[in-house]
Formats: sequence, structure tokens, C-alpha cells
Amino acid sequence: MASPDDPAPTRPRPATIWDVAHAAGVSVGTVSKALNGRGQLRAETREAVRTTAARLGFRPNDLAQSLLRKRSFTIGLISTDRYGRFSIPVLEGIEDALEAARISVFLCSASDDPARERQHIDSLLAKRVDGIIVTGRRTDARTAIDLGGASVPVLYAFAQVADPAAPYLLPDDFGGASLAGEHLIGLGRTCIAHVTGPERFEAVRQRRDGLRQALEAHGLAWRRERVLSGSWSEAWGHAAVTKLLARRPGIDAIACGSDQIARGVVDALRERGVRVPDDVAIVGFDNWEIIAAATRPPLTTIDMNLKHLGREAGMRMLAMIDGDIAAGVVRLGCQLVVRESCGAARAGRVAS
Amino acid sequence: MASPDDPAPTRPRPATIWDVAHAAGVSVGTVSKALNGRGQLRAETREAVRTTAARLGFRPNDLAQSLLRKRSFTIGLISTDRYGRFSIPVLEGIEDALEAARISVFLCSASDDPARERQHIDSLLAKRVDGIIVTGRRTDARTAIDLGGASVPVLYAFAQVADPAAPYLLPDDFGGASLAGEHLIGLGRTCIAHVTGPERFEAVRQRRDGLRQALEAHGLAWRRERVLSGSWSEAWGHAAVTKLLARRPGIDAIACGSDQIARGVVDALRERGVRVPDDVAIVGFDNWEIIAAATRPPLTTIDMNLKHLGREAGMRMLAMIDGDIAAGVVRLGCQLVVRESCGAARAGRVAS
Repeated sequence: MASPDDPAPTRPRPATIWDVAHAAGVSVGTVSKALNGRGQLRAETREAVRTTAARLGFRPNDLAQSLLRKRSFTIGLISTDRYGRFSIPVLEGIEDALEAARISVFLCSASDDPARERQHIDSLLAKRVDGIIVTGRRTDARTAIDLGGASVPVLYAFAQVADPAAPYLLPDDFGGASLAGEHLIGLGRTCIAHVTGPERFEAVRQRRDGLRQALEAHGLAWRRERVLSGSWSEAWGHAAVTKLLARRPGIDAIACGSDQIARGVVDALRERGVRVPDDVAIVGFDNWEIIAAATRPPLTTIDMNLKHLGREAGMRMLAMIDGDIAAGVVRLGCQLVVRESCGAARAGRVAS
Repeated sequence: MASPDDPAPTRPRPATIWDVAHAAGVSVGTVSKALNGRGQLRAETREAVRTTAARLGFRPNDLAQSLLRKRSFTIGLISTDRYGRFSIPVLEGIEDALEAARISVFLCSASDDPARERQHIDSLLAKRVDGIIVTGRRTDARTAIDLGGASVPVLYAFAQVADPAAPYLLPDDFGGASLAGEHLIGLGRTCIAHVTGPERFEAVRQRRDGLRQALEAHGLAWRRERVLSGSWSEAWGHAAVTKLLARRPGIDAIACGSDQIARGVVDALRERGVRVPDDVAIVGFDNWEIIAAATRPPLTTIDMNLKHLGREAGMRMLAMIDGDIAAGVVRLGCQLVVRESCGAARAGRVAS
């Protein structure tokens, strides 16, 4: 274990502001002014300090700067997504947005463990992060994180939160499912079923309603017996096909609540000799490449643009750090990604 | 955009060490001594400072502490794994190990972009991280990261690196594949094929050699025509079955180089009426739950224990920060996870 008091014996210590001050024969305050370009200094003093700093390989120390400026130029990202499937693109987007502001991201994986999340929050507050972004799988709405009275802006990105005063960003599930419905209808499908996840998920209800709106906008009837809610799994997609074919033999399309469900549906149809997309067109949701591209045929699906969502979260966090007040949900647009499972034109075309 | 000079107008400023000093009527140095439990102070002074700090809600500021101790209590984790599939468990393990030492992790997603990786390194060095751990997909061995002369310990975890002087941790691919072979042989399989990824991957060669060793240790012949190298995809697993059945109709087991390949193999066998595991036993590699558990039947596979690898990386990083010199590869053990694709006992049993 490292002891804070014993400097590592084997590595040379990096040059500090004190070394530069000593070598240049000036005060630490003068070095700071010279390197920050602030305060009043003679040009030759400024130049001498800069030359000395360069010679010693001194890097402006963000830690010291942040103490002077009362900003740490860091934010914390608390993720509860064990697989990283959703949190990584969100993180990449956040980094994109914050890089320009020279703000770094502390990632904390809480993995649905409230005690660990509590520790992470304490640690982030002790490090004086300028803000906290919370991301994770969207199961039931989570409770707002408890800052114990500290005043740090908190933003939820791709996380459902029970506090109506909390600001959060979500994909427009309703709009995404509506896109899927429009695509199927545009290809001439009229008898459209919906196989999806557990109804207690807000995303499931939003996607169902979005699909329904698309159908009804085109004068197609919405029938409850064509909607099957189950789990977020391939196995459920597989099982749903049996029920669906027994109940509604005439369906010509299935809009699925996730790519995993869609993959189970496609496999089950193939095993029954039902051709995809010729007999039944399939559209997924997620554009999870590893699933969508490996399905035979590859899935046409809805992309939630999670990297864009992350970028937006980063920009909003910057505004909040600057004093903006934010509250309530903002929904960001999804995108249709066309592959082969609906029979549209050529594979790989991306429509928006 | 936030300007560093404008404090956010809407949030109360957290109490600082200056506030505590002012309220307690002592110097900042005295506050620091009192809260750190260092230096000589009268007991009543120490107590007065602590009471004042508690009353004002002052949190010990890690930033200030790190400046005093020449340590930032942070490390940087540079990840090039776009999906997060491998990096997230490694990260969780690293966090586990570092949490006790109150060291936080900056995550940087470089996504195979050298320019971005360069920026991340500069930013981490400016933040005076105590060390850097590099993780990512193991494609070709990567070059060592360039610190531009800075002296910060660097450790590679689940990343192949071309520099023999660099310390790195990898799973024991050889041993893992050997476990897979032993499992198949223990179940009475004797005609074992191997469908795997591209031969240029060191992991592919290690796994092939591990499997070979297991077979030869049991007097089973190793035949080159039973080894098929392709891509890391389901599609390749699918295609390989056609080649394999034409070439070697008598095989009774296939050890696969990844779970994705194994899934393609299982699907292709089922579509040809070959029963898994009755006719042919299948073992995967990775224990990627989302693939392995959804395969029909679910895959028996090799788990690389990535969280453990991350924990080990964290512990080694602590030792390196403390001055330990490390170099060369350390390989950590894999584990057999038994599901249904080999026909062993009951599903879900985990053997080590």
C-alpha cells in the first residue's frame, strides 16, 4: 500500500511551481501570474518565468489552479449499467462535450449497490467535483441521489428519476417507436404486432403509445391482442412468436421493444418456416450492433443516439455549473437504421 | 460555457478551510493541523477547530490535501474498448482495489483514436494523476503510451503492449483453453475441433496451444485440419460448421475461440439437425452472459475473471505508486462455467 508521506523513491519528482520560482529567482505568485497571463508583470519577468518553466518541464498544475479558482474542473459520472452497453456511448458523448472545457470525468460504477453509490458520492464531494451526472439502466425510476446538503448540480442522463424537480435527459421512446411504425406502414404492412418488455417500464409504455399513434395516424386499427409484454430477452421473443401465431395468424409485421426480443422473434419465425422480411417484417429497438448485425437477416432498428445524448448532457452540465437552473425531462430524438429485416431498399441505408 | 472566474450565482459556496479558520479565529495552518491530526496543537484548539468545521459542514478537501502531500489520490484509466464489454468489469475491479486507498479513477475513452488518447494523457498528467492504467480490446499489440518524459507509473490491464519492459496483466488464455479441452475430454469426447478468431491475435494462438496441450496430455491426436481460424463473429461460426462437417464428419466436440463464434456454431448445427450436446458438445470462451445465456442450449464457456483481473491491476498500481518496479506480463487464471452445451451434470454449476 502507498503511504501518502513517503514519496516514491524510484521516480524523479515532477517540477513544481516552487522549483520554477526558485530557479527563476521570483516568488510563487509571480510564477502564477506569468503562466496565467494575469496581473501586472514586466514583460522580461514574464518571459524569464516562462523560459524557466519550459526548461524544467513544468506543467501547469490543474490541482493548484482549481484551488485558486474554486473549481476542480472535474465532474463525476455515476453509472449503474453493469454491462456498459448504454453507459459507454453516453460517457463518450459527455467527454466530447467537456473536453473543450478541459473538464475531466471521474467514472464510478455503482452497479445498483446503494452503499457503494453513497461512498462514490462522498468521494466525489470530497474531490470538489463541479457537477455529477448519473446514468444507468432504466428500470424503475430511481430516487434522486442524496448529496447530504452539498450544493453541486446533478443531471440524470439516460436514467429515470422519481424526483420531478430533477433535470434528466431521455431518448424520445415515443418518437422512436413511431418512426418504426411509419417505416413498416410505408412498406405496405398493415397487420402489425408489438412484442415488448415489461409494462412497468416507462420506456415500454412510451414505445407502445408511439407505435399506436403511427398506426392510428394511418387509419390502422390498434388491437390489444397484438401487443405482448414479457421480459427483455431473446427467450421471450422466441416464446411470443408461438402465442402470436396462434392468436393472429395474419400478421405481416412485428415491431419489437428491443433488439434482443427481435432476435428471438426472427429465430423463432425462421424455425417455423416463416420468411423474414417476405412474410413478416421485423423492426427492433436499440441498434445494439452485436445483436442487430448478427441476426439473420440483420435487423432494421431504432438507434437512441446515446452518444449525442451524452454530448447534450455534457453541454447542459456546463450550463448548470455556470448557474443555469434545470428541471424536468428533456427527450432527444431517435433514428431509424435500415438493415434487412423489413425488406426496405438496400441494407445499410440510414434514414433519419 | 462556464467561466472559471464567475462563481455560480445560484448555489451557496461550500465552506472552505478559510471559512473555518476565520470562524475559529485561528490560522489556516492550524485548521490543517487540527483536521489532519498532525503537528503540535493544544487539545482545546484542536477540538475548537473540529467543532467549527463540523458546524460549517466543511469537508476535508482532497484537492488541498493532495497538494500538501504531493499526491493527487487519482489514477487515470484509458480505455479503448468501444463496447465497454471488457473494460467495465476491469474498471469495477480496479475501483474495488483503489476504494480502500481513497483513490478515484478518471475514465478516458480513447476509442482507438491516437490523437484523443494523446489529449487524455496530457490532461491526466496536468491533473497530476498518481498512475495510469491502460485497458482495451486486445487486437494487435499496442505501442506503449507516450508520457513525454513524465514519470508516472503505467500499467496495462487486459491490453497487449509491444514494449517488453511494460508491465501488463492478461488472462491465462492458454490455461483457459486447456480447461475447456479437459472438460470435453472428461465427458468422453475424443474428436475435438477448434473454431476460432484471426490467427494474428496472440489470444488465438494461446488458446489453440492450450487446447492442443490438453488433447495431447490425454493421448488424443492434434490435427491441423480440425482448426479453423476466421473472424470474431457469429457469421464465422456459422460458416465454419459447413466447412467442418464437409471436412470431418466424425467430430463430437467443438471448442470455440469466443462465445460469439460458439453461438454461430450452435445455430448452424441446429439448422442441420445436429443435436447439441448429444451429437456435438460445444464450449465457448468469454462467458459473455448476453450471448452465452441466450444460446440454445446455453453455452458452457470459459470466464476470464475480468473483475478479478481489474482488482489485481489496482493492487499492483498501488504498489507501483509506492515505488515498486514492475515489468513484463502476468497471466491470471480463467474459470470454467458449466451450462448446457457440453451435456455435463446440471446447468448452472460452476467449476473452477
